[in-house]
Amino acid sequence: MQFFRSNTGVEKVSFGQMIETETVMDKTFAEVEPFDLKGRFLEIDNQLTWTFDLHDLDVVYGLGQNIRGMNKRGYVYESFCTDDPNHTPDKKALYGAHNFLVVKGVDTWGMYIDFPGHVSYDVGFNHSDELTVNVKETHFDIYFFRGAITDIITTFRKMIGKSYVPPKWAFGYQQSRWSYEDHDSVMAIADRFDEEDIPCDAIYLDIDYMEDYKDFTISDIRFPNFNNFVQTLKERGFKLIPIIDAGVKIEPGYDVYEQGIEKDYFVNDHEGHPFVAAVWPGKVHFPDFLNAKARMWFGDFYHKMLDMGIEGFWNDMNEPAIFYSEKRLKEAIEFVKQQEGKNLDINTFFKLKDKILNLSNSVKDYKSMYHKLDGQIVNHYDVHNLFGYNMTRSAAEGFKRYNPNKRFFMLTRSSHIGMAKHSGIWTGDNHSWWEHLKLNIQMMPGLNMAGFLYSGADTGGFGGNVSPDLLVRWTQFSVFTPLLRNHSAMGTRRQEPWEVGAQAKIALRNAIRMRYALIPYLYSEFMKANLNATMLFSPIAFAYEDKHSQKVEDQLLFGDSLMLTPIYEQNATGRVVYLPEKMLYWDMSSFEKITDKPFKLFEQGHHYIDMPMDAFGAFLRPNKLMVVTNPQNRVSKIDSCHLTVIGYVENQATYELYDDDGISFDFMNDHISSTRITVTNVQGQYQISVDTNALDLKSLTFYLIDDSGECQVITQNLEQVELRRV
Amino acid sequence: MQFFRSNTGVEKVSFGQMIETETVMDKTFAEVEPFDLKGRFLEIDNQLTWTFDLHDLDVVYGLGQNIRGMNKRGYVYESFCTDDPNHTPDKKALYGAHNFLVVKGVDTWGMYIDFPGHVSYDVGFNHSDELTVNVKETHFDIYFFRGAITDIITTFRKMIGKSYVPPKWAFGYQQSRWSYEDHDSVMAIADRFDEEDIPCDAIYLDIDYMEDYKDFTISDIRFPNFNNFVQTLKERGFKLIPIIDAGVKIEPGYDVYEQGIEKDYFVNDHEGHPFVAAVWPGKVHFPDFLNAKARMWFGDFYHKMLDMGIEGFWNDMNEPAIFYSEKRLKEAIEFVKQQEGKNLDINTFFKLKDKILNLSNSVKDYKSMYHKLDGQIVNHYDVHNLFGYNMTRSAAEGFKRYNPNKRFFMLTRSSHIGMAKHSGIWTGDNHSWWEHLKLNIQMMPGLNMAGFLYSGADTGGFGGNVSPDLLVRWTQFSVFTPLLRNHSAMGTRRQEPWEVGAQAKIALRNAIRMRYALIPYLYSEFMKANLNATMLFSPIAFAYEDKHSQKVEDQLLFGDSLMLTPIYEQNATGRVVYLPEKMLYWDMSSFEKITDKPFKLFEQGHHYIDMPMDAFGAFLRPNKLMVVTNPQNRVSKIDSCHLTVIGYVENQATYELYDDDGISFDFMNDHISSTRITVTNVQGQYQISVDTNALDLKSLTFYLIDDSGECQVITQNLEQVELRRV
Repeated sequence: MQFFRSNTGVEKVSFGQMIETETVMDKTFAEVEPFDLKGRFLEIDNQLTWTFDLHDLDVVYGLGQNIRGMNKRGYVYESFCTDDPNHTPDKKALYGAHNFLVVKGVDTWGMYIDFPGHVSYDVGFNHSDELTVNVKETHFDIYFFRGAITDIITTFRKMIGKSYVPPKWAFGYQQSRWSYEDHDSVMAIADRFDEEDIPCDAIYLDIDYMEDYKDFTISDIRFPNFNNFVQTLKERGFKLIPIIDAGVKIEPGYDVYEQGIEKDYFVNDHEGHPFVAAVWPGKVHFPDFLNAKARMWFGDFYHKMLDMGIEGFWNDMNEPAIFYSEKRLKEAIEFVKQQEGKNLDINTFFKLKDKILNLSNSVKDYKSMYHKLDGQIVNHYDVHNLFGYNMTRSAAEGFKRYNPNKRFFMLTRSSHIGMAKHSGIWTGDNHSWWEHLKLNIQMMPGLNMAGFLYSGADTGGFGGNVSPDLLVRWTQFSVFTPLLRNHSAMGTRRQEPWEVGAQAKIALRNAIRMRYALIPYLYSEFMKANLNATMLFSPIAFAYEDKHSQKVEDQLLFGDSLMLTPIYEQNATGRVVYLPEKMLYWDMSSFEKITDKPFKLFEQGHHYIDMPMDAFGAFLRPNKLMVVTNPQNRVSKIDSCHLTVIGYVENQATYELYDDDGISFDFMNDHISSTRITVTNVQGQYQISVDTNALDLKSLTFYLIDDSGECQVITQNLEQVELRRV
Repeated sequence: MQFFRSNTGVEKVSFGQMIETETVMDKTFAEVEPFDLKGRFLEIDNQLTWTFDLHDLDVVYGLGQNIRGMNKRGYVYESFCTDDPNHTPDKKALYGAHNFLVVKGVDTWGMYIDFPGHVSYDVGFNHSDELTVNVKETHFDIYFFRGAITDIITTFRKMIGKSYVPPKWAFGYQQSRWSYEDHDSVMAIADRFDEEDIPCDAIYLDIDYMEDYKDFTISDIRFPNFNNFVQTLKERGFKLIPIIDAGVKIEPGYDVYEQGIEKDYFVNDHEGHPFVAAVWPGKVHFPDFLNAKARMWFGDFYHKMLDMGIEGFWNDMNEPAIFYSEKRLKEAIEFVKQQEGKNLDINTFFKLKDKILNLSNSVKDYKSMYHKLDGQIVNHYDVHNLFGYNMTRSAAEGFKRYNPNKRFFMLTRSSHIGMAKHSGIWTGDNHSWWEHLKLNIQMMPGLNMAGFLYSGADTGGFGGNVSPDLLVRWTQFSVFTPLLRNHSAMGTRRQEPWEVGAQAKIALRNAIRMRYALIPYLYSEFMKANLNATMLFSPIAFAYEDKHSQKVEDQLLFGDSLMLTPIYEQNATGRVVYLPEKMLYWDMSSFEKITDKPFKLFEQGHHYIDMPMDAFGAFLRPNKLMVVTNPQNRVSKIDSCHLTVIGYVENQATYELYDDDGISFDFMNDHISSTRITVTNVQGQYQISVDTNALDLKSLTFYLIDDSGECQVITQNLEQVELRRV
């Protein structure tokens, strides 16, 4: 056991890492004298269990993408990337593995476990007053953080590296379905968006665009002239986002397969032959993404599609999902066969059922797979959580080789701490359940803590049939998430915005248009959260210390200025909100209504807010500003010359508006268009100052509400030089 | 199509019933001239679809035991009794089939579909403004009701017959688990309750008490002297409640099997041989409960156990649940065998998986089963929903033959409208999920509407592991449900009150003791709801017409005086409640605290109420009273001589207190001990009058709170003749 401390004061206890996860970017850790350890740890059977006391009022935040509330207390969780779309409240792991948590309470502290295998957390489940962590190994690093929760998070986020930034168009609305399977069906979707005058920036290609589900192939039959097709859509402002799966089809003549075999770049079985699993293409091998050479080799295949004009991808099935392995299917069939003609007892019947049921995503298979990592043979089970991460890293590094100063769009299903450097994530295969909308809301802070800023859920739900109101309410929430993607599975009810009734269509169009109006604020807050390693979505307890705020599970701070109070229950036409201080409600039902000044002040405390099906809104914090613009049907068409600023200004409010070219990495060098807007309320008279280097910014229209609720509209023409102080 | 009207004004449209369900007891229906029909109906492919318009503000109540909220709007439901413990939000049917609903809104009306097969309801799911009912047949009766919602429900409930009344001891706490499998483990549970000084009246015997899961047998090995054992526990005040399953084990020499074969009392397959299914005992036949003679035969077997001193049962697996049928297992094994050595494509793999997965509770099996009903051969699928109903009717009629004036305890899993005459129900195999606690809360009004007054959920959850706070919160709600049973599955965490930590144990003991304190009120309200065919649990919209009340989904009126506001979210230490008028909150954390006057008035509107883990409470409506007593460890020990009355009396309040011998049917003839308590507030002075025929009632202690919140304690000695006006 060795003890280290970083320049930022983070304490690290090392039990000796077996495998370098490459998640910690901070190189300032230096060995120090042993310090007092938090909690009590115990080594049994080559596993390590660490127990910490929880005080009654302690709240436990974090664990990234997982089920249950923002406060993780009261349940058991696992870090073990799992393809489980049916994530009911008894599940313990989802698609990602994010071993970072913060205990906020009497003593606020944080913990990151740097270990790529199975970790479990009992957060006050078996014993209400204990947090117990079990690591299925004795070789790992554990990091401890102290300070205020927001400081802990920033320190951690800086330690793991800056988060991924997508191109700006990725903040537009995105339409997906499994599948728009051919040229005509994609075109029909694009046409329909324009006919309905509903904004949209991207259309997804799910697995059926490929030839027999082979990665980096295009079905000639379904997409006869793919390059032209990509170009035509791009000219109309639609990006196409094709899927790439983890499994490579076993098919002689198929280049990825042939090269992988030739170069020995696939994950092996215990005999050293490529491991055979079955997923969508049938039998596949998995590229050995933990092998740096294999990673580079696979990453270069993306170039093929970048050459066709594609600018982004989603990596899927990379937990990796396994429908079955050849070997275990054989065993199961054998077992079933043996039962033929027997008078089965019930236990044998259940065993038979389990044999078939448990074929998919079996730990036994994961334990039968082997990686070659720097010449070392590593069992997959021990590094399971790094697989999806490294698949996506392979793509991201491939993009960098292709064009080092262009941002490509990248989403992935499976993830791990550290992967946020390379990609955004969607929250996996959810269902059209109100419970999964609530889960989406509650999951956002955990994702941000783990570094995932560009994220969102399959809006409307992937599995199952959506109801009109669920789609509307979910979209009204997703309007605020950086990734706003409507996606649904084969065989389910269609859930494009026009598919669930006339009333819903109007509400959906209004919500999506409001999203485009919000982009100046959303993009600014996203970029600031990125550059400053802060939260985009926070529990309100991160900013307010009163007793009530510590308990609120269904409201979110969104950026610095807004508080969200989404509706997530069927048939609700309003909800109770808790305001930790006096705030301004903006009824966002439609952007155009802004001229009616749809603003209302509410005092600190609990309030019931009416939000009929076509209505939603957000609360603006006092002495904060937000900046919006007129909605357009593409992000690229957004008017950044004439902006609207809203604020409830009792004294003074300042807003930092960020913008950039939306596609390069120039922001990394602070080559950014920045505007600082300050509004001061001097006894009912507003003084406005604007400090900007944005040459195209021509006017700002202010909606300023004072303590009495009175709204003044003031338009400032920035072409008058005296207002613009660069 | 024929038209009828009853003396109570119910309209009936008959398409000619194929099978008499015996659910409608009202014999006053007379044929009338055709009247205007509600909605539009359409016959296609021998199915009938009936569509009704829904107004924006219409709320749809009913459908008995089903998933989702009190307002059923926004989803699709099915009436088809189903053993599905994993009832996630996408499921459409649970264990019962209850074809009664009421639309409350601009035009309030109700509908009962008298049909024993598959019925589905689209309640504004595909089209927000339509309710569509599909009946898988063209022969059925449909009844329409008009008036206020509470009048509709009373009319319907009277039409289907008075609900089941259990013995009074059934209102005590009941402890169950799958399984307390032998003499010693049951005895240890009984001992522990007494050691811990936690009230308990009944302990359940799950399937393991039997010999090889054979109905009406007792394992000699596990229960060497069962009669003595039953007697010993009874003397200590514990009732034993054994389970009876629907399937009869195929075993030569076993009397139930032998007789069933001999008398041809089993459900047949299409060749006329007894249908072979597999459930817990392995291969079984199902008694043909739709055959009156078989019903009588099976019902008489219960006598065997009544003779041993047993006073109640729970009928299980009577949807009927089928793990697999011989025939379909054979087919599935054959299919799997054929895949051996083949290079499976993914579709074939999924087909293989489905073949095995879909073996249980298959509609194909239900379609292969045949009943003999009055000499007629009837396919089981067409009458599926009557099976559990008639199993339980068989038991109930058996009890009546055994002792016509004794109430026996009876619970059943599967149910149908009309079955409420014979038995209570528990809400089936739920999970230790907060979502299922919420479902339990929201399901209560629907059950009451369908006639099921004696009901409750598996408190703490049947499947999965419970957390301490979930068990506490669930128990704090179940304290109010007539059936208060803690039940959990094999392999899950133990959830007896002492198993989840010291803090939880105290909270659980306090809650269970409070239950016993509540029994005078609970029993009175239960009996009044029974005798008057009214609701025990109502949405608050049934009593309050303001806009907010129509939307409240997580509060319940409980009897005439109380409003419940349970906590159903993890880590919550309070919640927001909506008060449609000024009400009095009673902090019920522990009964003994009553002397501290733990009452507080809250004005109309939304309020946040603190309820830390050990605290819960209820709101008392103005000018209503409730009557409680000192808790005891058995219902039989409850002190009915000295009672406590609580009321927030602005003007005048009257309470009707009912009591009876707790075991006979004398209440049916109104031989009941009734007490009428009236409190009048005359300018701060209380006038009390008591009208009673209860000779043992000696004193009443009043806690009376006035509009200013001041609480006066007044004790009335009823041995003074002048107060007692018979």
